[in-house]
Amino acid sequence: MDTAGMLNKLAKDTGYELVCIGVPKTIDNDLACTDHCPGYGSVAKYVATCAMTAGKDTEALYTTDTCTILEVMGRNAGWIAAATGLAARCPEDSPHLIYMPEAVFSFDKLISDVKEVLKRLGRVFIVAGEGLKDENGQYVTADSGAFNKDSFGHVQLGGVAEMLKAVIEKEVGIKARFNKLGTNQRCAMHFASLTDVNEAYMCGKAAVDAALSGENGKMVTLIRQDGNGYKCTTGLAELSDVANGETKVPAEYINENGKGITEAMKNYVRPLVQGQAPITIDDDGLPVFMRFERKGLEKKLAEYL
Amino acid sequence: MDTAGMLNKLAKDTGYELVCIGVPKTIDNDLACTDHCPGYGSVAKYVATCAMTAGKDTEALYTTDTCTILEVMGRNAGWIAAATGLAARCPEDSPHLIYMPEAVFSFDKLISDVKEVLKRLGRVFIVAGEGLKDENGQYVTADSGAFNKDSFGHVQLGGVAEMLKAVIEKEVGIKARFNKLGTNQRCAMHFASLTDVNEAYMCGKAAVDAALSGENGKMVTLIRQDGNGYKCTTGLAELSDVANGETKVPAEYINENGKGITEAMKNYVRPLVQGQAPITIDDDGLPVFMRFERKGLEKKLAEYL
Repeated sequence: MDTAGMLNKLAKDTGYELVCIGVPKTIDNDLACTDHCPGYGSVAKYVATCAMTAGKDTEALYTTDTCTILEVMGRNAGWIAAATGLAARCPEDSPHLIYMPEAVFSFDKLISDVKEVLKRLGRVFIVAGEGLKDENGQYVTADSGAFNKDSFGHVQLGGVAEMLKAVIEKEVGIKARFNKLGTNQRCAMHFASLTDVNEAYMCGKAAVDAALSGENGKMVTLIRQDGNGYKCTTGLAELSDVANGETKVPAEYINENGKGITEAMKNYVRPLVQGQAPITIDDDGLPVFMRFERKGLEKKLAEYL
Repeated sequence: MDTAGMLNKLAKDTGYELVCIGVPKTIDNDLACTDHCPGYGSVAKYVATCAMTAGKDTEALYTTDTCTILEVMGRNAGWIAAATGLAARCPEDSPHLIYMPEAVFSFDKLISDVKEVLKRLGRVFIVAGEGLKDENGQYVTADSGAFNKDSFGHVQLGGVAEMLKAVIEKEVGIKARFNKLGTNQRCAMHFASLTDVNEAYMCGKAAVDAALSGENGKMVTLIRQDGNGYKCTTGLAELSDVANGETKVPAEYINENGKGITEAMKNYVRPLVQGQAPITIDDDGLPVFMRFERKGLEKKLAEYL
């Protein structure tokens, strides 16, 4: 929304007629002024399902692969990692540990957490947001101190999951593996949330309606209604307010030990993953997505410079 | 099937009455004596869909992330990597390059392949089997020569995808990212092939029927029928024949440059991914899977030793 806000200001300052209405869209779910962002419900549904199924896999094999790490997106906010907590319907269910950028991370704590779960269940399933930070606010990657070298003195490069795997194997002495869904988590239309897709459409429509009714410099927001059952409507916020804010996972959604989520977080995310968006499957058994033809238009303007 | 074969031999040699009928099951699809293995159709459907959707993601963003690498399982056989080729319905579609353990891999070839695709499409999507090997049959990982150090002289540890990413960024000069589905590819029941699930059931039933009819030391096989349309029946093979064999992706399924698949491979895998296995979705919007209660039974035997 920064760009929309800047464009809007520039147009105003130069007297150029331009209507700017922001349509929210980010799986990161970190935009200010809105209950949640279109895209988040679908990534939440998918990563929670991945945590559930890979957890069953670990459970089936836990004499040989006792630790599985699922790395999910979210460099500054832990919303995606937090959503995987929905998969845990009972203490045996994965994920057993969820680490989010909002909670201070340390390898000592990791080792102690992993040992505790192992003792209790004989296996451990960890979800890690890609942007974990230590007590100094530094990302837990190659330069994070004592654990950045393996037993041969080689520097460990790569993401959070590789780092966690290396530390757990060395310090806890169990085999660990990691899954890194990467961009696949943000484009899994084969298992997207119907609620999310409907709300995305609703936001787009609200943006057009707002523009036609003379609004400018606003972003469409999603407003969760009070009362029983989930109901969501749209509103408008100033683009400047959105551009200057950021929404992180609040403290009351993170459990007291900083290694999981609370019931409040589950209640927040549960309505957003409801329903499955329909897709078209072709004769080859795979989904169909459109591609624009990208036809060139005949040039009408003179050279700019 | 090795264990089943050994148990069968041991029982026979010692005169112990034991019926051994193997039920095939491996996403790797590398068992001998069978057209394909239960599990493969589902992983094929899922990884092809992941290659398709992540390819659309790269396409949407290709001014900033021009290269995406999808690492899939298959340490010795490239069946899973090969299946992703089904996602490419036209030359623009991902994946653009598929590397399988059956084709000799080299970084010089990779760099040249990537540059060619970039020139043609402005982006590149690569699928890499985890067990890529060089001309000497060595795995392409940390110890693979000139490319195992980054520009700081740090040894690059990790899997194939990390290695490809590092080489492409350094030698081609574009940003690359990788997705590693890991165990999530072999447990994606939320998008499993109905054909595969039905055939798995068929194999289990055939195994029980075979045991009841007095067979021993056999494995159930899947036999693809000749003629129009796909039809599959079961047969039986000697466990010893299965244990001594391995099925790799044959040369006629790999294109002449060793960087993709042929129509023959598509024709082989297409029937296996048909249909979508039904799943139960709970009120929380996520799938439901059972867990055995694992109740302990009262001990009836005397101490063994």
